[in-house]
Amino acid sequence: MPKISHKGNLMPESPIRKLVPYAEKAKNNGIEVIHLNIGQPDIKTPKVAIQAIKKFDNKIISYSHSAGNLSFRKKLSTYYQKNNIKVNYDDILVTTGGSEALSFTLNCIADNGDEIIIPEPFYANYNGFSISSGLKIIPISSDIKNGFALPKISEFKKKITSNTKAILICNPGNPTGYLYSYEELVELKKIVLKYDLFLISDEVYREFTYDSKKHHSILQLDGLSQNTIMIDSVSKRYSMCGARIGSIVSKNKKIISTALKFSQSRLSPPSFGQIAAEAALDVADNYLTEVVIEYENRRNLLIRELNKIDDIICPKPLGAFYCIAELPVNDSEDFAKWLLESFQINNKTLMIAPAEGFYSSKGFGKNQIRIAYVLNENELKDAILILKNGLNEYKKITNNE
Amino acid sequence: MPKISHKGNLMPESPIRKLVPYAEKAKNNGIEVIHLNIGQPDIKTPKVAIQAIKKFDNKIISYSHSAGNLSFRKKLSTYYQKNNIKVNYDDILVTTGGSEALSFTLNCIADNGDEIIIPEPFYANYNGFSISSGLKIIPISSDIKNGFALPKISEFKKKITSNTKAILICNPGNPTGYLYSYEELVELKKIVLKYDLFLISDEVYREFTYDSKKHHSILQLDGLSQNTIMIDSVSKRYSMCGARIGSIVSKNKKIISTALKFSQSRLSPPSFGQIAAEAALDVADNYLTEVVIEYENRRNLLIRELNKIDDIICPKPLGAFYCIAELPVNDSEDFAKWLLESFQINNKTLMIAPAEGFYSSKGFGKNQIRIAYVLNENELKDAILILKNGLNEYKKITNNE
Repeated sequence: MPKISHKGNLMPESPIRKLVPYAEKAKNNGIEVIHLNIGQPDIKTPKVAIQAIKKFDNKIISYSHSAGNLSFRKKLSTYYQKNNIKVNYDDILVTTGGSEALSFTLNCIADNGDEIIIPEPFYANYNGFSISSGLKIIPISSDIKNGFALPKISEFKKKITSNTKAILICNPGNPTGYLYSYEELVELKKIVLKYDLFLISDEVYREFTYDSKKHHSILQLDGLSQNTIMIDSVSKRYSMCGARIGSIVSKNKKIISTALKFSQSRLSPPSFGQIAAEAALDVADNYLTEVVIEYENRRNLLIRELNKIDDIICPKPLGAFYCIAELPVNDSEDFAKWLLESFQINNKTLMIAPAEGFYSSKGFGKNQIRIAYVLNENELKDAILILKNGLNEYKKITNNE
Repeated sequence: MPKISHKGNLMPESPIRKLVPYAEKAKNNGIEVIHLNIGQPDIKTPKVAIQAIKKFDNKIISYSHSAGNLSFRKKLSTYYQKNNIKVNYDDILVTTGGSEALSFTLNCIADNGDEIIIPEPFYANYNGFSISSGLKIIPISSDIKNGFALPKISEFKKKITSNTKAILICNPGNPTGYLYSYEELVELKKIVLKYDLFLISDEVYREFTYDSKKHHSILQLDGLSQNTIMIDSVSKRYSMCGARIGSIVSKNKKIISTALKFSQSRLSPPSFGQIAAEAALDVADNYLTEVVIEYENRRNLLIRELNKIDDIICPKPLGAFYCIAELPVNDSEDFAKWLLESFQINNKTLMIAPAEGFYSSKGFGKNQIRIAYVLNENELKDAILILKNGLNEYKKITNNE
């Protein structure tokens, strides 16, 4: 039998999804599983997006332009301009989700064996995209005790080699909820200019910032237009993950024309998703305002209650809808399995995402979990109760071993 | 300014789309352009597919399973079984078009620098997918004078090295319309077993065969289940290219589990496309029967009329909706530009796809074009008249130079 490729073997299983069989077994046993593990928002998609789909009245579901529908790109540029990100429609390529935006971007800037620096913990699928593209991720560890602040410039300088092509950040961050300050972005600007690197920023959670904090895009940095590439998606903003619509945004014309060649090779992004995403831009301003208030309330509840539990460390996230919590366990994956297999309160249990898969450095994050607060407050309360009592029970068992 | 990657520079521009600016200029000058250059069918999508989209009544457009919706995979397996391709739902992964199916497959079986053998001319985007994945295409030329039959086994043997991972065919073929006989597939089976290679077959035009010829899938070959991977898509079958739904089908469990890891990294295929594609499987059998009759009639007209033109060679395709024609010109790209810029009949001109981009061997196909017969018979007649008279006029001009 012919062999699977090296990169195929290297590809990680999704750390978010690999506990799924345990959850399915619990469900088959009649247990309700509360999911803190996956970033599928429970917020309703804007009605105007779904209505636009229902109004589809062509006789043929045909290809769109490889760069995306022109009307959508023009409307997107207006949306960005409203957010003080000054781009035109031809600085934007529509992609099949943020995933494809990132894959194309990596292919545009790096070849097999090249390196890309990413502060860890980072969105686990960056591993997969890098392996697909033959790149090597060079992690720079940010520390839970510092609230996952940007590591010092000196740390970056230590990691830069002749193979380094880019620094990639996620802002606000998945899985940390960290929001980069303007000063931190300026620090990054200095590094990328000094070493002639690209700066890639995944900004799909742009609107989700709390405590009246402001999001800063890398596209707002002066004098950096040839180095910056922004990754975006409508998945989280409008709670429409299944539309599979994202974008690459850059003032660097060579990046856009190269990414367009990758876009042409896969013909076009999904037609229906584009229709829905374009219509979503018409939603009233208070849609996002209300969503942000809802997430902020959940965050407040979650962080307050988590920090009441003994020996849990959980910095307060300023954006997105995730946090990383350090638990008083040796191995959070074992604990996650144990919860699904052996622990319930009122016939409910909990699914959490072990954080190890969000790190690239071996052994890091082993006692941490990622929590996605995409549940209403009542469910969150139940989840925290299960976590708290589960930890107590688990401590007794493991101490007796 | 940081540099674009080597692979980004290598990526070809779409040979189908690169004449677009010339066509746009003609249109801006009020000239009607008949498109023989692009494989966007003019046939109507089954109504049942579009109706299913209009019935969408969830409040959230959420992720689907990374492998695709279970109900769709189950229904797809029934469709394949009806076509005498014996697969279960867990032999199928739903992808974002046939494009992603092929990208994932190449990533599963080959690493940077590995080689894949493809009979040429081949679907031009195979070049793009190979460059993205860091692979090298080793072409084996099939000859227009043989009607693009499978090259002799001895030709394959000459090309196989220790880096060869797979042979890729498209059956029925884009751009040739060639339909592989059962005997030819058995020849390929012998080679892949002898050299322990994968055999990948792009079978997206399965139903479109003419003169009562039968399509044979590589998944019907005995004793080859661990070597075969089939690429499929609903784009052409149901005239729904914009849905962006394809599939990887293989009995090799390791291929499916590896491709699933790539699938997980991009989260899920488009939700609306899957709904439409699943519903399309409910269309009455006579939908496809009528589509095939329509394409066969167009093919008959096209080939008959083309072969009446002096010095054109055009073998009769037995499948798909393309043919390759050799023209009495030195450079079909020059001729294609000239048609768009300088030739009209009744204020109409013609857009053809130069065939050079469908070859990997340098300089091959320079006097050939690919024609997609996705136009009704009246438009086809107009197109052939323009081609015939255009060639006459062009001959006079070039002889006088």
